[in-house]
Amino acid sequence: MPFITVKMLKGRNQDQKRQLVQAITNVMVDICDAKPDGTMVVIEEVERDHWSRGGVLISDKVDPEVK
Amino acid sequence: MPFITVKMLKGRNQDQKRQLVQAITNVMVDICDAKPDGTMVVIEEVERDHWSRGGVLISDKVDPEVK
Amino acid sequence: MPFITVKMLKGRNQDQKRQLVQAITNVMVDICDAKPDGTMVVIEEVERDHWSRGGVLISDKVDPEVK
Amino acid sequence: MPFITVKMLKGRNQDQKRQLVQAITNVMVDICDAKPDGTMVVIEEVERDHWSRGGVLISDKVDPEVK
Amino acid sequence: MPFITVKMLKGRNQDQKRQLVQAITNVMVDICDAKPDGTMVVIEEVERDHWSRGGVLISDKVDPEVK
Amino acid sequence: MPFITVKMLKGRNQDQKRQLVQAITNVMVDICDAKPDGTMVVIEEVERDHWSRGGVLISDKVDPEVK
Repeated sequence: MPFITVKMLKGRNQDQKRQLVQAITNVMVDICDAKPDGTMVVIEEVERDHWSRGGVLISDKVDPEVK
Repeated sequence: MPFITVKMLKGRNQDQKRQLVQAITNVMVDICDAKPDGTMVVIEEVERDHWSRGGVLISDKVDPEVK
Repeated sequence: MPFITVKMLKGRNQDQKRQLVQAITNVMVDICDAKPDGTMVVIEEVERDHWSRGGVLISDKVDPEVK
Repeated sequence: MPFITVKMLKGRNQDQKRQLVQAITNVMVDICDAKPDGTMVVIEEVERDHWSRGGVLISDKVDPEVK
Repeated sequence: MPFITVKMLKGRNQDQKRQLVQAITNVMVDICDAKPDGTMVVIEEVERDHWSRGGVLISDKVDPEVK
Repeated sequence: MPFITVKMLKGRNQDQKRQLVQAITNVMVDICDAKPDGTMVVIEEVERDHWSRGGVLISDKVDPEVK
């Protein structure tokens, strides 16, 4: 029955997302004994101007390396 | 004071959403004795390529019946 | 596939919760054409000293009617 | 380590959002002794036709003052 | 910067949780190029009488196999 | 109408929580022009053995300074 929400900055491609949900599901099954068909993963992409760390929006940061 | 979040796949029309928030609010009032004006419902539509079940994104599934 | 989260103040009994999840599921099926078995509802009870409205925790409010 | 999610109706400009995340981070540091760099704020804007109060979508309300 | 929330039924032991957060973090790093130190995972355990599927609370289901 | 969720490690006392919800509400009113009575804040305390950073649960970290 697990329901996993992944909030992350926009920028990953469709193939990464495809691999991501498969890998997280495998983790739930292997470690937590979940049933695959009962495991759901939702990806919530966040724009860089809607996420802050240290009080500064990522879009305002100089460091382009943040992911 | 209830706050209800409905995550569902994109695809319902505005009239369905209108009925949905009204019906859920009624349920909260009738069953849980909530005050209508203190009850909020937020709909979060999720794209089919951002939601997986069984490790597979809905957009990659062959079955078109998933809703 | 809908996933519904109900945040509400603690205080409803088990029978109300039982009716609540059934009624919300029915709403999703009737109005949004969801499949019952793909519809999940999670209740998140919140303590009165962890929820505020107007800047004041419910536990600090004089009005005992808030639900 | 705090993670703050702000769900609000669409309509604030970028400068308001910039000030908002800074101010909330300051509050977490000043009152809760959080470390600035460990504090994240995510803004989730909701469309007026996806948020209801009292069973009615904000987009269907006559009062234009709701924010 | 990813923030992952795992909602699941209560019942896993501490060692499973320890492995779970490590494995999900590895997945985020390997597939999505996230930095480990910027990746946070929060586990939210849900009681069986607060989670329903098909309109029925898990605690009310006869099948003891649900996880 | 804003709805703010604060996820943070357990450990703040009631007075800090009282100040926290008041201060965040003030920020929403001052910066985002929200109405106080329409602004809700929910605090979700997380146990140190349910929150990880860098793949390690906070309860397993040696550094006692994490907050």
